[in-house]
Amino acid sequence: MINKLITEIQKKNAPVVVGLDPMLGYVPEQIQSAAFDGFGETLEGAAEAIWQFNKGIVDAVYDLIPAVKPQIAMYEQFGIPGIMAFKKTVDYCKEKGLVVIGDVKRGDIGSTSAAYAVGHLGKVTVGSKSYYGFDEDFITVNPYLGSDGIKPFIDVCKQEKKGIFVLAKTSNPSSGEFQDRLVDGSPLYELVGKKVAEWGEECMGDKYSYIGCVVGGTYPEMGRVLRKIMPKAYILVPGYGAQGGTAKDLIPYFNEDGLGAIVNSSRGIIAAYKNEKYAKFGAEHYAEASRQAVEDMIADINSIF
Amino acid sequence: MINKLITEIQKKNAPVVVGLDPMLGYVPEQIQSAAFDGFGETLEGAAEAIWQFNKGIVDAVYDLIPAVKPQIAMYEQFGIPGIMAFKKTVDYCKEKGLVVIGDVKRGDIGSTSAAYAVGHLGKVTVGSKSYYGFDEDFITVNPYLGSDGIKPFIDVCKQEKKGIFVLAKTSNPSSGEFQDRLVDGSPLYELVGKKVAEWGEECMGDKYSYIGCVVGGTYPEMGRVLRKIMPKAYILVPGYGAQGGTAKDLIPYFNEDGLGAIVNSSRGIIAAYKNEKYAKFGAEHYAEASRQAVEDMIADINSIF
Repeated sequence: MINKLITEIQKKNAPVVVGLDPMLGYVPEQIQSAAFDGFGETLEGAAEAIWQFNKGIVDAVYDLIPAVKPQIAMYEQFGIPGIMAFKKTVDYCKEKGLVVIGDVKRGDIGSTSAAYAVGHLGKVTVGSKSYYGFDEDFITVNPYLGSDGIKPFIDVCKQEKKGIFVLAKTSNPSSGEFQDRLVDGSPLYELVGKKVAEWGEECMGDKYSYIGCVVGGTYPEMGRVLRKIMPKAYILVPGYGAQGGTAKDLIPYFNEDGLGAIVNSSRGIIAAYKNEKYAKFGAEHYAEASRQAVEDMIADINSIF
Repeated sequence: MINKLITEIQKKNAPVVVGLDPMLGYVPEQIQSAAFDGFGETLEGAAEAIWQFNKGIVDAVYDLIPAVKPQIAMYEQFGIPGIMAFKKTVDYCKEKGLVVIGDVKRGDIGSTSAAYAVGHLGKVTVGSKSYYGFDEDFITVNPYLGSDGIKPFIDVCKQEKKGIFVLAKTSNPSSGEFQDRLVDGSPLYELVGKKVAEWGEECMGDKYSYIGCVVGGTYPEMGRVLRKIMPKAYILVPGYGAQGGTAKDLIPYFNEDGLGAIVNSSRGIIAAYKNEKYAKFGAEHYAEASRQAVEDMIADINSIF
């Protein structure tokens, strides 16, 4: 799957991923109304609204981008109907040929991580049959529990030729509270980065490993160091756009081959029509606003090469 | 909710929580067959099997214990039908008067943690209405992203009078890989413990805070230190029984008032009938085996006081 991701990035000349993190407040009035007419102001109505919203965006941008990253929390907040909308979104994006990165940030002790790995990336056995649960292509994983919490994900990645992105340095303001603390003179995120490189050696694609890493675009100097520590790990970079990262900040995340990083934007794309710059599209044409925002983002990022 | 948890612990004289982490392999043949007869060897069949299995155990032990801790990964592995079985389990346990600790180990950047907080502990707004999503009483939370990833959970805890348990030192063998690393001379888990104490001051129940902590029962010396660092934090202790922790190991986790800790056992209780000690019950009477195992666990733990 890392090979497919890279092929799609090259084919579309777009090292970008669109974060499908639909807050109900981003969903245009007309879509909310239609969903509430059908299902009432219920969890089912909310789930229908975010699904229709997503579908509009995916239809408008799928030919431009290699991948999407649905953030499961935004669906989980609507309970079971929300999770059903997550699954529908995953399936629809895959039908459209997109690589799907489930932003689930799971991580637990070994036997429990194994269940998450099976549920999100692999197949679970039921009697004599086996089934995919959520069936994303990649997921994000939290490293706090150490290697035995990560290994079950790696095992499933090997079987399924899928991948994970391990959190090293996150994009949020307080990420340094624990991640930046010095351990034997180096920050904790570097220690995680070294482990990512080590874990990644076990499961290489053609040029890059199935085991990638999350490094926030808001911390370019740290990105530079982590890039060197894990030369074969793809870096998933959140924080561009709404969180404050700029294209110039992204240079250190890429390798000299022009590969090695994929940059996420969520709000900046899916809620583009609410941004002054794209306001002319109006809420009715929110998906076209998203398409324009994707085109602008791709041009902006490609300007650094 | 921390007050309710303590009241129930005292009323039942049982500082224990039963982990409802149903692997399909734990579910007796007769329950699997009945579920597969109704739904086939499908995700729905698996979900029905684990739900019926849970219900049998809950019916057999609810009068003995204050709380249950369903591990969501074990449900998530069966996709949406699995998540529906999780929700059914949460609701049923609450009907039975049990405090429900959702072992979900969520944690993300601020706006995303807010969505998890709303989905698991609080209410989400849909138009003019609002709804509980999963509606657990407590959940477990991962601290790797720092304060701004924890604060949204605390905000919802204040509104809802619910609580969280923040991972400090987990019970698994490789937990030390990052958690034990020295930061300014103290291990990372102590730094997390200090933050738990600080966060907890903001939302105190009568004697203990809504903000608790997870400390594995397999590391009693670390438990002793963390107990002192966070005197007002309830400690959720996994690792007793199947993972190797003994009753004597648990002494340091309790305060002098005999409170301050609640000990989890999952496999040791729910798969008791598979243990030689309880084999006489047989698979048919698996729930009675679980009841006996709970009674033995309570006696074992109370022996330390």
